[in-house]
Amino acid sequence: MPIDVSPFIVKEGHSVNLKKWPTRVRPFYRSEHDYEAMLAAHVRTLAEHQSRLYADDRYSLLIVLQAMDAAGKDGVIKHVMSGINPQGCQVVSFKHPSAEDLDHDFLWRVVRQLPERGNIGIFNRSHYEEVLIVRVHPDIARAQRVPDFDQKTVWKERFRSIVDFERHLHRNGTRVVKFFLHVSKEEQRKRFLARLDDPEKNWKFSVGDIEERARWNDYMHAYEDCLSHTSTRDAPWYVVPADDKANARLIVSQAIVDLMTSLDLRYPKVEKARLKELRRIRKQLKDGN
Amino acid sequence: MPIDVSPFIVKEGHSVNLKKWPTRVRPFYRSEHDYEAMLAAHVRTLAEHQSRLYADDRYSLLIVLQAMDAAGKDGVIKHVMSGINPQGCQVVSFKHPSAEDLDHDFLWRVVRQLPERGNIGIFNRSHYEEVLIVRVHPDIARAQRVPDFDQKTVWKERFRSIVDFERHLHRNGTRVVKFFLHVSKEEQRKRFLARLDDPEKNWKFSVGDIEERARWNDYMHAYEDCLSHTSTRDAPWYVVPADDKANARLIVSQAIVDLMTSLDLRYPKVEKARLKELRRIRKQLKDGN
Repeated sequence: MPIDVSPFIVKEGHSVNLKKWPTRVRPFYRSEHDYEAMLAAHVRTLAEHQSRLYADDRYSLLIVLQAMDAAGKDGVIKHVMSGINPQGCQVVSFKHPSAEDLDHDFLWRVVRQLPERGNIGIFNRSHYEEVLIVRVHPDIARAQRVPDFDQKTVWKERFRSIVDFERHLHRNGTRVVKFFLHVSKEEQRKRFLARLDDPEKNWKFSVGDIEERARWNDYMHAYEDCLSHTSTRDAPWYVVPADDKANARLIVSQAIVDLMTSLDLRYPKVEKARLKELRRIRKQLKDGN
Repeated sequence: MPIDVSPFIVKEGHSVNLKKWPTRVRPFYRSEHDYEAMLAAHVRTLAEHQSRLYADDRYSLLIVLQAMDAAGKDGVIKHVMSGINPQGCQVVSFKHPSAEDLDHDFLWRVVRQLPERGNIGIFNRSHYEEVLIVRVHPDIARAQRVPDFDQKTVWKERFRSIVDFERHLHRNGTRVVKFFLHVSKEEQRKRFLARLDDPEKNWKFSVGDIEERARWNDYMHAYEDCLSHTSTRDAPWYVVPADDKANARLIVSQAIVDLMTSLDLRYPKVEKARLKELRRIRKQLKDGN
């Protein structure tokens, strides 16, 4: 039975108070083994959908992942998207903008990384960083040198730009779905500690991670404003309870399965004239050439 | 026990006569089940190597796949590379060059698609099309508007450009490995017929596929010249017997495993000063912040 993911959608116009959105819900799986079977089923279905998405060649899918550090973005990509044919699926991690990026508007570098028709694109961080980290760090905002920059109005203007941008994508065949992996501050603490104890992971830990953690409340406020203003019917945000990694992966994969199912993707029909041509080729090959 | 893939390598300077290279060899697996277990083991090893490739962040890997139609390139990508984290692996399919591509030298569009450091890039077709399809179709070559174009010298010149280009990549950390999936003309005939009978596949069959088949000998000659001139110690060609798809996937995956193993990829060591810093962070988190 599919998981009902509708409780996790932010309805268009809804004002989000993250304290009221759970970071943990009753698991949808009964055991580790059950989780693995459910996830494997989701991945299989996704792989089939992807194959049709590619053949159908009308839509593309853009999956946006946002979260605080250690919320499980990389794990979602690894566990939900491994098993999918990498031909037709691209992951983009947005790092520090280059000097060239900064010489353009904030959507410019994102546009260049959009998935091609027929493909799945996954943004590990995204244009939403422009209303999150940039909002929490005024010095980053200043480095963007936007004329008449005004902290009081700029975020609403950016929300408007983003919503318009995603509407444009939708009209042209790109289906956008966005996930905020919602972890508690206490769960992040535990995961940071686990990372520090793991030699395969501790090398990537930086002081920056702790500094961002210290700005937790500022981030929550930025996320709330962002989620409240940019979740639309056609490009919804899901607030995914992420203190339980396994459960979060099931919710995300179910939401993607639901979206792809709704597209009614089909292998192209072969038209009559072409069918005739294919029959001719078939005969030629049958005859041994 | 690992498969010995060395018989399939074209040694630098070796002159290739494809009639002497098998399209079928004794299978390395004993049963369908055995094949699946072996492939799964290769994929698991590749996934581990990829994780270290990414962390190590010194090398990138460029895998080039070339073949006649229906030789199994897409299948290799799907079966060998599904299971790998798509974050850190990108597949590029080179289609017809754009007008902008044609306004540049033949390596230009390839350079723009090279994998980033730490990543695996897979070229489904590649810069080698420039000495294969372009050689077999003089009208395509003419459209490139290269000055003083001379059929007698141009291919050797291109081989030189390609070898120099790949040497440059090697010197800068990109490891290049190239696979020619070698199918017999008879096996292609069977696969074309099977495709024509499969509604999930026949829509992508085109008259062009048959027209290229009619040029089989020209292609074999172009491949032989190409393999003879561009297989180097650092960027070798494998001629993979591909009449048996399962066996071909095992050979390709083993060769990639061998290459990645040889790189001695490691998780970065944490230096003393940083270790001290990490201990401080650890304490701070332990104390509950």
